[in-house]
Amino acid sequence: MEHPENHEDYKGLQVNAGVGSQPITNPYRNIRRTRKRELSVNDYVEGIRKGDVSILGRAVTLVESLAESHQAIAQEVIEKCLPYSGNSRRIGITGVPGAGKSTSIDVFGLHVLKNGGKLAVLAIDPSSERTQGSILGDKTRMEKLSQQKDAFIRPSPSAGSLGGVARKTRETIVLCEAAGYDNIFVETVGVGQSETAVHSMVDFFLLIQLAGTGDELQGIKRGIMEMADGIVINKCDGDNVDRAKLAAAQFRNALFLFPPTPSKWKPEVLTYSGYYELGIDLVWDMIDRYFAYVKSTGYFERKRNEQAKYWMMETIDEQLRHNFYNMPEVRALLEQKELRVLNNEQSSFTAAKDVLDCYFQHLRCPEN
Amino acid sequence: MEHPENHEDYKGLQVNAGVGSQPITNPYRNIRRTRKRELSVNDYVEGIRKGDVSILGRAVTLVESLAESHQAIAQEVIEKCLPYSGNSRRIGITGVPGAGKSTSIDVFGLHVLKNGGKLAVLAIDPSSERTQGSILGDKTRMEKLSQQKDAFIRPSPSAGSLGGVARKTRETIVLCEAAGYDNIFVETVGVGQSETAVHSMVDFFLLIQLAGTGDELQGIKRGIMEMADGIVINKCDGDNVDRAKLAAAQFRNALFLFPPTPSKWKPEVLTYSGYYELGIDLVWDMIDRYFAYVKSTGYFERKRNEQAKYWMMETIDEQLRHNFYNMPEVRALLEQKELRVLNNEQSSFTAAKDVLDCYFQHLRCPEN
Repeated sequence: MEHPENHEDYKGLQVNAGVGSQPITNPYRNIRRTRKRELSVNDYVEGIRKGDVSILGRAVTLVESLAESHQAIAQEVIEKCLPYSGNSRRIGITGVPGAGKSTSIDVFGLHVLKNGGKLAVLAIDPSSERTQGSILGDKTRMEKLSQQKDAFIRPSPSAGSLGGVARKTRETIVLCEAAGYDNIFVETVGVGQSETAVHSMVDFFLLIQLAGTGDELQGIKRGIMEMADGIVINKCDGDNVDRAKLAAAQFRNALFLFPPTPSKWKPEVLTYSGYYELGIDLVWDMIDRYFAYVKSTGYFERKRNEQAKYWMMETIDEQLRHNFYNMPEVRALLEQKELRVLNNEQSSFTAAKDVLDCYFQHLRCPEN
Repeated sequence: MEHPENHEDYKGLQVNAGVGSQPITNPYRNIRRTRKRELSVNDYVEGIRKGDVSILGRAVTLVESLAESHQAIAQEVIEKCLPYSGNSRRIGITGVPGAGKSTSIDVFGLHVLKNGGKLAVLAIDPSSERTQGSILGDKTRMEKLSQQKDAFIRPSPSAGSLGGVARKTRETIVLCEAAGYDNIFVETVGVGQSETAVHSMVDFFLLIQLAGTGDELQGIKRGIMEMADGIVINKCDGDNVDRAKLAAAQFRNALFLFPPTPSKWKPEVLTYSGYYELGIDLVWDMIDRYFAYVKSTGYFERKRNEQAKYWMMETIDEQLRHNFYNMPEVRALLEQKELRVLNNEQSSFTAAKDVLDCYFQHLRCPEN
């Protein structure tokens, strides 16, 4: 018998200390540690397919683990879940800290669940980009949603490169879809590079903005604006209604300057109040319209295909670099060459060539 | 005797038809084709060191050539020029089409040459990003500057990836510096990704903007704004003076929203008129102040070192990808795997792994 919980005795499956167990905000996952036993790949897949939240959560933990043995199981589980994936609306939600993302996702989520179905809320927030408005860990952030049994809320994987974190979120989407979650929200803090990663894994990209904080430019990042399929101005309530409507008009004007989107969908700009739950249905009507539109034009399918290819290429790029920079001979030579380049003794280009030659030679004859 | 000009007979040094000879805008390069003879590496280096514009131009053509034999010579020439390089001010200049870049560079160039020294004007404009405001080929674009014997104007290499084009421009900088050019302008159309490449090869990055074309947001790209060490509003003349001053104020306000620059230099916003040659000296005073500042803080040296390392890493990344995607076995498998991924038969991640395995196995045992 194997007892993976007992780290002292058990050597086959090691739990990497750097990752540990993830905080789970879903109160329905209430498994005592003593009940945990090691699951086979089939146990995982069956549990996920039945919609067992506890097994889904454990599978996601495997996906997020850096241990190779965990990764091996995780990849098998993902592979077996793949045929059951894809059947959801994947919606990216971003906004600068203070825009009211948590409150908004809370009410958007309730709105979605009113029509039945299930909702998974995932997040991408690589630690390097973490700001005061961190989206990690706070279990009370989505108060209403976390009490819904059809909502699965999972914070961002806590460690690793953006590429690594994004891949894990993408694989978690597959697992959630296989578990019957037909609405997936992927949340980011709208201040960094994560948005590109999220954009490449969702169908609809929603940008939450604020009105009139004095500087019209605040938070307007063309890169992110250009990705948005919808821009919604939060806190359109009380004294703030006029300013919110004005901001919406400004955003509409700004969107005119942008080239048409690949989908030919014209991004819409709406106002709402997350706190007072005003205008939520209009926001969601827009998203419904979007899905109807891109499904009718075939863009929905095309984009999903492009995204799948994109992730394959991304993984390849990352692995090629990883392999190169982790060869001891390469690291040693690289250090020398850097010095030569800095002293103007060699050009960046020939120095790179020399290190590449060393790399490929060692790959071919590892004995040298 | 070898006659590289005679493509029919000569087989050793082939001129790649895809590149051809570059248009040279400098009228002082007035060599008849019959006078051209093949030069040795030492001929090139000596000619460049003497400031021979014709030999410098031919060396740049070698750098830009895609033929391997040309590249071999070019790299040797660059290597031998390296110890004489670095002694210049490298200034990146960008702006959206219509901002008046050509006129501005013309008068900026004349202003710089008034103090003696020599000026090289290079450009980066990968064909994929080419717009109506193309910076290629137009010999009359910089009318005044092109008549100055101390100015060397070279259009963008005409073909290739952004990475390739950028590398060639960077290597051309080395040659120009070895030839005694102590001011280097690198121009881009401010609409694409080239700005990042230019930013990573210059000391000072100047952004040319226009005032009040109706939409305040027009052309404000945060990515580019954040790179700028100076923003200058062109066409501050006649009726337009008030609007230009207003735009300058708006840009100054916008800059307050940005985090401090790595150099701690506070980017300045100025107005000028390229056409009427107003305010040129003030723009250049700012640039002088910048260089004095970064040289006093040591940032100048530090940034140059980082750039040299950056280009080495860039070359490595590009070559790793090139090597991978050009292996016939990889290409064949990649095609199959793409299909499987698109049909949800395999995950992007394990598909990538399989292709990577194939690649590394063939590298180790090429016979299989």
